[in-house]
Amino acid sequence: MIRNPEVQTVKTALIAADGFEEIEGLTVVDLLRRAGFICDIVALSDAEVITGSHGIRIGADCRFSETDFSSYHAVILPGGLKGTDALKADERVLTLLQQMHAAGKLTAAICAAPTVLAKSGLLEGRRATCYPGVEHMLAGADASTDTVVCDGTIITSRGAGTTIPFALAIIAYLDSEKHAKEIARKIVYSG
Amino acid sequence: MIRNPEVQTVKTALIAADGFEEIEGLTVVDLLRRAGFICDIVALSDAEVITGSHGIRIGADCRFSETDFSSYHAVILPGGLKGTDALKADERVLTLLQQMHAAGKLTAAICAAPTVLAKSGLLEGRRATCYPGVEHMLAGADASTDTVVCDGTIITSRGAGTTIPFALAIIAYLDSEKHAKEIARKIVYSG
Repeated sequence: MIRNPEVQTVKTALIAADGFEEIEGLTVVDLLRRAGFICDIVALSDAEVITGSHGIRIGADCRFSETDFSSYHAVILPGGLKGTDALKADERVLTLLQQMHAAGKLTAAICAAPTVLAKSGLLEGRRATCYPGVEHMLAGADASTDTVVCDGTIITSRGAGTTIPFALAIIAYLDSEKHAKEIARKIVYSG
Repeated sequence: MIRNPEVQTVKTALIAADGFEEIEGLTVVDLLRRAGFICDIVALSDAEVITGSHGIRIGADCRFSETDFSSYHAVILPGGLKGTDALKADERVLTLLQQMHAAGKLTAAICAAPTVLAKSGLLEGRRATCYPGVEHMLAGADASTDTVVCDGTIITSRGAGTTIPFALAIIAYLDSEKHAKEIARKIVYSG
């Protein structure tokens, strides 16, 4: 794993439950680690292996119940219906999102997962985007069809096909637009 | 895992060694499974867990040494320098590619991995693309800077940022352009 010494103190967590969408989760982890950030895959359950919505099994870096999130700068939620439902049903996740938000830290979600931000009350009066058809679950938000929406400390995006711009927006937010562009160039992304 | 009964007899294998590029490998697996194809993650080594170039650990579906590839319709190689070097150094891989090719089956590779196709002799006189800067290792090929190049039964692409169009080209080849477009729409991909 390549880490840029200048930015390796940026600490991010991807919260993954069984049924998370693999592209949406793992593309983010890959690109944030390329950017030199720490990006931990945090298992919602106490299992060491998390199974994605298309059957890909991945190893968790740590368990939610054992993680102290106070040192993290961002919490990121991948989509996948079953995975999103598990996140939404977990009071610990909703409380964590509220705490991160209150501390001025980044919360980000893609596909169906912006509905978890909505359930935790974070999207009230904010612009946000999500998977087409679940906009009605973004209670109180100004729903957009943009690929990525950044409103204050919240970044949302639409689906597996928009994960690269979602991850690049997180890099731009946590470091710089220049750095995001450099990563895009290195992966031959022109979108 | 969702499988469309019409296409679940399409059988594909992603050959992954430690150091494979995660986006390039797992995006392909995700999208081909979405398309209803069987897509097995085949570990080059006998290990059950494969570690990608950005530290993501994934479970293998089967081992190279125990796999009978005669029933597969396609073999796909992800990039990642270390992973590509391991594929290229393995005579079994070079022989498998030659056998698949001789049987008129699809071989596909992305990023640095088209150089493995070149080493196995498949790119002689063909159009192909690869990661910028490794074109000199595509011996005998007509190197292109297109995002995805399909020449006969060979599909090549450039990097992590071009993996979605690479996977969609594989779906179009093995099933139909219409199916590839439907998958693109479902993942909100407009590239």
